[in-house]
Amino acid sequence: MKIRIGIVGYGNLGKGAALAVNTNADMELVAIFSRRAGAQGDGSAVFADEHSRTVPLCSVEAAADMKNDIDVMLLCGGSASDLPKQGPHFASMYNTVDSYDTHAKIPEYMASIDAVAKKTTAVISTGWDPGLFSMMRALFGASLPEGKTYTFWGKGFSQGHSDAIRKIEGVRHAAQYTIPVDSAIGAVRSGQRPVLTTRDKHLRECFVVTESGSDKTKIEEAIKNMPNYFADFNTTVNFIEADEFHANHSEMPHGGMVIQSGKTGINNQAMEFSLKLDSNPEFTGSVLAAYARAAFRMSQEGLFGAKTVFDVPLSYLAANDRLSLIRELL
Amino acid sequence: MKIRIGIVGYGNLGKGAALAVNTNADMELVAIFSRRAGAQGDGSAVFADEHSRTVPLCSVEAAADMKNDIDVMLLCGGSASDLPKQGPHFASMYNTVDSYDTHAKIPEYMASIDAVAKKTTAVISTGWDPGLFSMMRALFGASLPEGKTYTFWGKGFSQGHSDAIRKIEGVRHAAQYTIPVDSAIGAVRSGQRPVLTTRDKHLRECFVVTESGSDKTKIEEAIKNMPNYFADFNTTVNFIEADEFHANHSEMPHGGMVIQSGKTGINNQAMEFSLKLDSNPEFTGSVLAAYARAAFRMSQEGLFGAKTVFDVPLSYLAANDRLSLIRELL
Repeated sequence: MKIRIGIVGYGNLGKGAALAVNTNADMELVAIFSRRAGAQGDGSAVFADEHSRTVPLCSVEAAADMKNDIDVMLLCGGSASDLPKQGPHFASMYNTVDSYDTHAKIPEYMASIDAVAKKTTAVISTGWDPGLFSMMRALFGASLPEGKTYTFWGKGFSQGHSDAIRKIEGVRHAAQYTIPVDSAIGAVRSGQRPVLTTRDKHLRECFVVTESGSDKTKIEEAIKNMPNYFADFNTTVNFIEADEFHANHSEMPHGGMVIQSGKTGINNQAMEFSLKLDSNPEFTGSVLAAYARAAFRMSQEGLFGAKTVFDVPLSYLAANDRLSLIRELL
Repeated sequence: MKIRIGIVGYGNLGKGAALAVNTNADMELVAIFSRRAGAQGDGSAVFADEHSRTVPLCSVEAAADMKNDIDVMLLCGGSASDLPKQGPHFASMYNTVDSYDTHAKIPEYMASIDAVAKKTTAVISTGWDPGLFSMMRALFGASLPEGKTYTFWGKGFSQGHSDAIRKIEGVRHAAQYTIPVDSAIGAVRSGQRPVLTTRDKHLRECFVVTESGSDKTKIEEAIKNMPNYFADFNTTVNFIEADEFHANHSEMPHGGMVIQSGKTGINNQAMEFSLKLDSNPEFTGSVLAAYARAAFRMSQEGLFGAKTVFDVPLSYLAANDRLSLIRELL
């Protein structure tokens, strides 16, 4: 019997999650729930995978009536406004997995989920950061307590920063790339354990298409001085034409690394985890699918409530059973 | 209250584990158990850390009387002859952690431990391979099911291969280094997902000091044709003087990497974990100490029996409590 999956939200992440569910032989995509026009639970087929399987597009409200048809809901909405409402709403009815990524508010979000997930298992804040990178930070610190943990992001496309640029008057299209500083990575890898500021670690590179007649100097200043987003970074702004933008800046690559620079006695010891992703939303969706398997299995064992990547044993993630894992991968 | 640790076996790994226990503020090294001459439980001080703390050296037999004094035993003996006996023996009395690494026999070893660990928690086969590398293989496969997992070891000193050379007539000292082949790593990283033979993946480089008058050509042939150890590899043998050997080949560096070369839809996705260790036994000892914390906590919760790295949630490894982890590292 396959694990029956529903997906809530059908943007980039939802599409990545749908692809992932259809890649896992032990899962079945039952329905996609969306607020978009036409999503009325009328069975409109919206997703076709390589086997031309299609699944119905339903309204978010219709989900309340499908408790017997779906084992796990993948919540693929945004952290700013969708998940704070959808997380507790769905976790009260379904096992859920989400990628809530407002780091500072995770404890509060977790409490809101835990309060309602009395008979369900809700894995929150998974994906790769928070998610796999968080796991590495915890594992690295425990393995080499005398050491320092560094996280670098990129080179990668940042949706949030691109959106922030797009809100500036006169900007038509924008793509922002976060780029880790090679010399900073080199210093960390060398075992120097440097103290690095925000500016030392990452550069920001922007590609901007303007409305005709707008003041490029003013736009560039507005970007570079934007607090939180750009003011603390060395930022470069490139103005390009719309054709070039669509040709070269419509993909969503990302990646990054977690490095532990540690010591035991007088010996240097280094641990490193890195991701190089051609598609950030598809990879994140693939991690969500693995945690859907874990949420399902944990719920079967009565392990209810809000869970994080720190709480889920790796054996729950793998398609193989525990003994095969031990035989083949240990 | 600190977690009270005993160490069984005081070779390279036992010394690394002792260093690690003394580095973790929530642990206390209570005793070292050894079969070496003089280990009679007479309180001979054998270990002094940076704070000049010393711990008694006891006979292995004395351990049976210390059940009230020790929370977790770190079993630091070898996999060939020590652990198959010591594993079940100690797991029947104590929570244990070991680094049993005879991959093919792990299921059998696990069963022998599980049969006796009725009121204890025994984490088997941890360290880095088996251990952290196994975790990555499981995590990577679950995160990117459409992909291939590659493990490379080295550059690093191999105790087993060095010992094998030392048994050849006319050999006085020997050090063998396992070296991953750069072009193979490059092919994997490029996303080609190559099929690699044993010979494609690793080289073996040997440094040998001979007894005077021995036949170097014969020794070199004996090494290169040794089945299992060298015959399937491209092997180079360097004959050196004893002075150079002691100056350059008495350290135990190691490392390696696990790489997942995967796809989602048409996009390439890569995951990589690597270790660069100046001291293999000290790092392995440090991982064992982290799992001692996990074994202790799991036993407190009644999670008894043989456990592997696939069964232990990361929150059990970290010195911080779960909520701090979520606040600080998620």
